[in-house]
Amino acid sequence: MDEIDIAWESEPELDDPVFVEGLPGVGHVGKLVAEHVVEEADSELVARVHSEHFPPQVTVGDDSVAELANAEIHAVDTAGRDLLVLTGNHQAQDNVGHYRVTEAVLDVAEEFGASELYALGGVPTGELVEEHDVIGAVSDEDLKERLEDAGVEFRSEEPAGGIVGSSGLLLGLGGRRGFDAACLMGETSGYLVDPKAAKAVLAVLEEMLGFDLDEEALDDRADEMEEVVSRLREMEDGPSPGGEEDLRYIG
Amino acid sequence: MDEIDIAWESEPELDDPVFVEGLPGVGHVGKLVAEHVVEEADSELVARVHSEHFPPQVTVGDDSVAELANAEIHAVDTAGRDLLVLTGNHQAQDNVGHYRVTEAVLDVAEEFGASELYALGGVPTGELVEEHDVIGAVSDEDLKERLEDAGVEFRSEEPAGGIVGSSGLLLGLGGRRGFDAACLMGETSGYLVDPKAAKAVLAVLEEMLGFDLDEEALDDRADEMEEVVSRLREMEDGPSPGGEEDLRYIG
Amino acid sequence: MDEIDIAWESEPELDDPVFVEGLPGVGHVGKLVAEHVVEEADSELVARVHSEHFPPQVTVGDDSVAELANAEIHAVDTAGRDLLVLTGNHQAQDNVGHYRVTEAVLDVAEEFGASELYALGGVPTGELVEEHDVIGAVSDEDLKERLEDAGVEFRSEEPAGGIVGSSGLLLGLGGRRGFDAACLMGETSGYLVDPKAAKAVLAVLEEMLGFDLDEEALDDRADEMEEVVSRLREMEDGPSPGGEEDLRYIG
Amino acid sequence: MDEIDIAWESEPELDDPVFVEGLPGVGHVGKLVAEHVVEEADSELVARVHSEHFPPQVTVGDDSVAELANAEIHAVDTAGRDLLVLTGNHQAQDNVGHYRVTEAVLDVAEEFGASELYALGGVPTGELVEEHDVIGAVSDEDLKERLEDAGVEFRSEEPAGGIVGSSGLLLGLGGRRGFDAACLMGETSGYLVDPKAAKAVLAVLEEMLGFDLDEEALDDRADEMEEVVSRLREMEDGPSPGGEEDLRYIG
Repeated sequence: MDEIDIAWESEPELDDPVFVEGLPGVGHVGKLVAEHVVEEADSELVARVHSEHFPPQVTVGDDSVAELANAEIHAVDTAGRDLLVLTGNHQAQDNVGHYRVTEAVLDVAEEFGASELYALGGVPTGELVEEHDVIGAVSDEDLKERLEDAGVEFRSEEPAGGIVGSSGLLLGLGGRRGFDAACLMGETSGYLVDPKAAKAVLAVLEEMLGFDLDEEALDDRADEMEEVVSRLREMEDGPSPGGEEDLRYIG
Repeated sequence: MDEIDIAWESEPELDDPVFVEGLPGVGHVGKLVAEHVVEEADSELVARVHSEHFPPQVTVGDDSVAELANAEIHAVDTAGRDLLVLTGNHQAQDNVGHYRVTEAVLDVAEEFGASELYALGGVPTGELVEEHDVIGAVSDEDLKERLEDAGVEFRSEEPAGGIVGSSGLLLGLGGRRGFDAACLMGETSGYLVDPKAAKAVLAVLEEMLGFDLDEEALDDRADEMEEVVSRLREMEDGPSPGGEEDLRYIG
Repeated sequence: MDEIDIAWESEPELDDPVFVEGLPGVGHVGKLVAEHVVEEADSELVARVHSEHFPPQVTVGDDSVAELANAEIHAVDTAGRDLLVLTGNHQAQDNVGHYRVTEAVLDVAEEFGASELYALGGVPTGELVEEHDVIGAVSDEDLKERLEDAGVEFRSEEPAGGIVGSSGLLLGLGGRRGFDAACLMGETSGYLVDPKAAKAVLAVLEEMLGFDLDEEALDDRADEMEEVVSRLREMEDGPSPGGEEDLRYIG
Repeated sequence: MDEIDIAWESEPELDDPVFVEGLPGVGHVGKLVAEHVVEEADSELVARVHSEHFPPQVTVGDDSVAELANAEIHAVDTAGRDLLVLTGNHQAQDNVGHYRVTEAVLDVAEEFGASELYALGGVPTGELVEEHDVIGAVSDEDLKERLEDAGVEFRSEEPAGGIVGSSGLLLGLGGRRGFDAACLMGETSGYLVDPKAAKAVLAVLEEMLGFDLDEEALDDRADEMEEVVSRLREMEDGPSPGGEEDLRYIG
């Protein structure tokens, strides 16, 4: 295997596609959005990205078949713009790997003619969030106006700690290559998987790219999380009378 | 020394051998099985694998002679299939090294014409295990039926955290090369070296590959561990009256 | 992107410039001095240094535009010597990267004909410091006399733990290349951002290089820190009556 | 600078020299012996080994001159065999670096025609040691008899955790190259710098190589440590009446 190995599954024709990234991170917000788009819209697996910089492991599917650690690139046909969506279970585990995997992914985006990219994620607030604002950062100041019209908030020098990992590098390295790149970050506590923050980010993405997906799956997931949160609150208030409860939703 | 250095000791003729891996890991299950097969059957050291990605250390033998960190590949002649068995005291210590050592080991397996591989290990349950089920994961769904007939259980999306390290990569990278690859994981507490879990895994391997080894050594080891466990239970119940006891068996 | 990537912004003509480094470190002393010089004197951005060995992240500016992790090299025109000033938010994250980034930066210094360098930093004392001595270390014993005349103290074998990171390597690798190199370290508690230690280091630098900058900005920053320190002392003495206070200045 | 950079200081003529290593480690035993030999016998600095795998730092000498992290190779003329002695303040910080630095050092040893090597260190016992036995491990069983005659003890499979770092790799990689290599490990608590363990190792080395050095410096150092130990014991027995005492000897 090469240091970074792109295993092609299909080579769809895409019309000026937009590159969208949603990998695991704060509240799994970016991953929830990206997976929702891939599942709800008409999509096709384009490639799996493997790398020596990913963890040395396989995941086991529902058919007990092992899948080497990878990130997936899907082509998605929406009512609006064509998309290339990067999602999966892994990010690179070391600095050098992060840079190299991101460059390889940007090469794929360029091969399909993409010149616009959205890196999706969450921004942790440290407390339970009622209103899920979406914070933005951009590669070019000119991109802000349209994003503000779609509901994105821009706050000077926030997030204060910068944007770390794939989302940050896609914005930084993508911007250097001339991509119109934005990072959309849903506010979230940072403690729990957060489908509501994902819905807020999805709404911005749909507005920007002209499509509108069924949100039932995210709503169901949000309902499940609501229940988890109310159980956690009960546990804080006193011992739960109900015995063993399933708290495995906590990300 | 090269990044990965295969020091050949012999070049036996093998007939369509099966590659079997058992390196240190959960409950040392895989290592116990692999070493038992090497010791009980007719075997010959084929090569030592050294690597800059192994820990920078030597082990000291019973003759006080130092041996540079390595993994060993043995040729094993059984009543059934010929085997190539990978075992030893070390795995690579970094992600890139894990990928590269595994690829080098698969190269050796291919040189001997192997096209089938079994990665052996344990799966931690977090509690003392009475019935040692063997859980499986495969590179190809078609492999499951024969394994189920040999007593392997397949559970959807388990182990939930995936399979990490050499076993996982041999399955993932081996599968990509076209090996018929399976990982056999004995259920074990995860706290102790577990010869009983090893016996359960060995039984599956013997059934699949048509051989039958004396198990006395594993039984003796299991008896020792039984004693350790009962002492631990006594210690939980109260101070042991017997003074200093040897608990060094805990892995 | 290359392993180390110098993105040129301008190519000023400099007359026998002195290379000055102030990156994040103990008390942010070096960074405070370097940024103060860049802001108060007539300066121009020469290059941004990016590297795979920097953290995989962007910082977000006051215009919400993302900037890939980098260190900046500025040309500074003072009343005395011309300067090349290295500052920024990041150091390399691994040993090999530290060596390689430092070598690349020294290449830039040599391209501009610099043969003298000052690495600026803090030396932690573990307690609040009243008198901010400046401790020195040099690449060549002949450099000590002029520095002592400018107020630098030389203490045998101090700092005892050596000088770690960019400052240490610029001194060590710069000295090997024939630079006249000195490290100037302001004594500081090590617990807080320390503008007073920065003023002490700046004073030595000005004396050595023949310029004299307005220090109001550092004085203001020092006043802010004074307030932080007095609040911390109140907190030690008892619960603060004033409710939530802003202690975000603590570096 | 290259990945590993040998800076030559002299090229002495040596007659069939023996390579001796004493770098920082358990109880600093190896380093104490190696430095004692270099200081007490007639010695000359041959080379400094620098490497990207060493920590990114300089040490500061008694003249405030910085010295880039390095290990030193000295030629030593004794009444017995000629020696090449490797000592210094640093070992490589990562696995790959450990292997590569060791190979580079063995290249130097071979350039001078050395075919015999002694790696010196300590073996931790976890308790204060009265009798400082010297434990041995070898590259070849034939080496044991002469070492036993010189007072070395060989204990089956000890040290149980193997020998880690430079000493281990010099033994392992040196043995692979055909060196007659031995590791001599003085028993020591592991908590303190241990000049007495160093004396025990030195005695073996002198016996093997036919020289006899003044030991006053090690005796003085041992007396200092005795005092430290007795103060520590007093502290265990109750609060010291004497106020602040200097415990900086603890390594």
